[in-house]
Amino acid sequence: MARIVQKFGGTSVGDLDRIRNVAQRVKAEVDAGHEVAVVVSAMAGTTNQLVQWSKDIGPLHDAREYDAIVATGEQVTVGLLAIALQNIGVDARSWLGWQVPVKTDSTHGSARIEAIEADDIDARLSQGQVAVVAGFQGISEEGRITTLGRGGSDTSAVALAAALNADRCDIYTDVDGVYTTDPRIMPTARKLDQITFEEMLEMASAGAKVLQTRSVAMGMRHNVKIQVRSSFNDTPGTLVVDEDTQMERQKISGIAYSADEAKITVVGLDDKPGIAAVMFEALAHDNVNVDMIVQSASTDASRTDITFSVAAGDADKALSVLESVKDKLPYQRVDAASNIAKVSIIGTAMRTQAGIANKMFASLAEKGVNLQVISTSEIKISVLIDSAYTELAVRTLHDAFELHEA
Amino acid sequence: MARIVQKFGGTSVGDLDRIRNVAQRVKAEVDAGHEVAVVVSAMAGTTNQLVQWSKDIGPLHDAREYDAIVATGEQVTVGLLAIALQNIGVDARSWLGWQVPVKTDSTHGSARIEAIEADDIDARLSQGQVAVVAGFQGISEEGRITTLGRGGSDTSAVALAAALNADRCDIYTDVDGVYTTDPRIMPTARKLDQITFEEMLEMASAGAKVLQTRSVAMGMRHNVKIQVRSSFNDTPGTLVVDEDTQMERQKISGIAYSADEAKITVVGLDDKPGIAAVMFEALAHDNVNVDMIVQSASTDASRTDITFSVAAGDADKALSVLESVKDKLPYQRVDAASNIAKVSIIGTAMRTQAGIANKMFASLAEKGVNLQVISTSEIKISVLIDSAYTELAVRTLHDAFELHEA
Repeated sequence: MARIVQKFGGTSVGDLDRIRNVAQRVKAEVDAGHEVAVVVSAMAGTTNQLVQWSKDIGPLHDAREYDAIVATGEQVTVGLLAIALQNIGVDARSWLGWQVPVKTDSTHGSARIEAIEADDIDARLSQGQVAVVAGFQGISEEGRITTLGRGGSDTSAVALAAALNADRCDIYTDVDGVYTTDPRIMPTARKLDQITFEEMLEMASAGAKVLQTRSVAMGMRHNVKIQVRSSFNDTPGTLVVDEDTQMERQKISGIAYSADEAKITVVGLDDKPGIAAVMFEALAHDNVNVDMIVQSASTDASRTDITFSVAAGDADKALSVLESVKDKLPYQRVDAASNIAKVSIIGTAMRTQAGIANKMFASLAEKGVNLQVISTSEIKISVLIDSAYTELAVRTLHDAFELHEA
Repeated sequence: MARIVQKFGGTSVGDLDRIRNVAQRVKAEVDAGHEVAVVVSAMAGTTNQLVQWSKDIGPLHDAREYDAIVATGEQVTVGLLAIALQNIGVDARSWLGWQVPVKTDSTHGSARIEAIEADDIDARLSQGQVAVVAGFQGISEEGRITTLGRGGSDTSAVALAAALNADRCDIYTDVDGVYTTDPRIMPTARKLDQITFEEMLEMASAGAKVLQTRSVAMGMRHNVKIQVRSSFNDTPGTLVVDEDTQMERQKISGIAYSADEAKITVVGLDDKPGIAAVMFEALAHDNVNVDMIVQSASTDASRTDITFSVAAGDADKALSVLESVKDKLPYQRVDAASNIAKVSIIGTAMRTQAGIANKMFASLAEKGVNLQVISTSEIKISVLIDSAYTELAVRTLHDAFELHEA
């Protein structure tokens, strides 16, 4: 007997038939003798409708009211799934964020989970009852409903698995697992049986959409065994594991990409300590999420250039922030380019294998792909390129590293 | 300065424009210097959709889950209205049933309010903040969401007005107030400036749909001054008041009708003490709501007949209950008739004026309307008639009692 947390996203609970299908998947685990807690998202499309209403009602935005409104999406699905389970003979009840309770900070719209007091659920699981828990939501110290931000249900599931000391957290999604790269771009992409937390974290932050970054970090911190699998078939998925459980890798694990990036270069900054801090603090203060950063010498030795990338949607905001700090931070000019893609290769193999960066740069150069910015971490190399070359770059690297075979 | 509770139903908050319109009506009271709490229903149609899903997901029904699901309707409108108010410069926040808290018993789907702990809202009203409270919902002792049953938002509003010692509870609806009878049937129907709680109670239970019976009873018990008025214009509505504030009436106040009734006669029962109790206990046990009851001697002196009316939708259930108790309660046969309407005249004038019943029976007889069952209370006379005569009977009585003039 094991204790399992299952998480189903909005597509998996998109209508009543799919909710009944989810109920069958839960029942299968119960019938196998396991204790089961299920975390669900809102029915696909519901959250968008609720968000739209909250925006359309007026330009002023109260994030506390927004949270109360959008949290209703999950409230409906937990009730419906609990009824669906009872109808096939499975004892089940729903739990809203404030009922569990899932305690969060008061950052409405993107709250952080501080503690899950799961004693009640724990006791009922032991008695054989299934807990159907609303993902994405919690309660603040002030007693208001909070939400964790889009995709937060993954984080809810992993945090609940940690709080319940679950043996496994199964994240059901519309793909079979984690692939070496996006199969829509590369038909020979291969599903990975295992991936490490660190690799998964880099994949997620590099643009792979299969698991939310925060949930992977949460899983790594609490050592929750996560499985990514399909809600539409019984194929085994991808297990996200601690590094030590995995054989040493001979090659990289995957290739991620993100096509909607913008590159901004601030040219001719005074080259003195603290200028980068001033610039990136100003950007962070206005919630501009900066990804890659490269600093280089300017042609004038007393000056320097800083290049960074942001999501294309944040580019205008970044430019106006730079305009506003020009007094404190004199520079000559700002160059901005959109139509930029980020392509990354990820793998713990980089720790032990030499020549991986070389191979990446050489194979891209051979196809005439110009690298505009390069940045590296211990297990990831990312490059910014013209977005017209995105698919070519991904396919070239997938072939070069022979990812179609294990 | 007064303290006012305003209640807006599903039609009044049916879309974003109407919610903005409600916000303006709240602002008008705030600008006049009043403290305001607003109770709202779900957007029209939303609750029906949620109820449908809860039924369609499977035949087994868990009322606790049903309540969690349908309570989301009001949760969305309170959030949207709070944002709409903030957008026109009115300080406001939403309150869900469990946040107030509105404490109820555990009869999910038709819970009764036991207590409203309104200290937090009280304090914030005094500071000038508008409380936007979700109608129709509360929380049980077990910490589960409860709902009060359809139309329960009227009851929420009146109960909140009582808890907050409000000076007035304005129920906004799609009609201007309480009319002498249904204006769709009788174009000369007149809006009443005042009506007593007792009359309103009898009107509501006799089929007038303008206020929910429970909310009137709640208002009477706690002496809450209720006003029924339109959310679409500024015409003064109808004030529901204690009898002593009203001049002595010379005529009846109104005519109510209900077209979907069924009449059931149990013929040839043993005429001995306790048979009525056995029969109506069995019906009550199966939730058949019996309205009028008449007992009469049978042709055989040792036997008796009992006639009662139920909503047409309950007729089949009533018949099967009678079939099931035949062993304990021997009878000769059961006669059932549908296509029955109930027409009632209501007014405290009956207490002091003689001849009102006579006038009713005579004017109906003159038009050839046959009375099948008659029942009277202190301030109401109801008759069951063939439903084909409903409109004729209502119009005849409205003219006979000269209700078009005050």
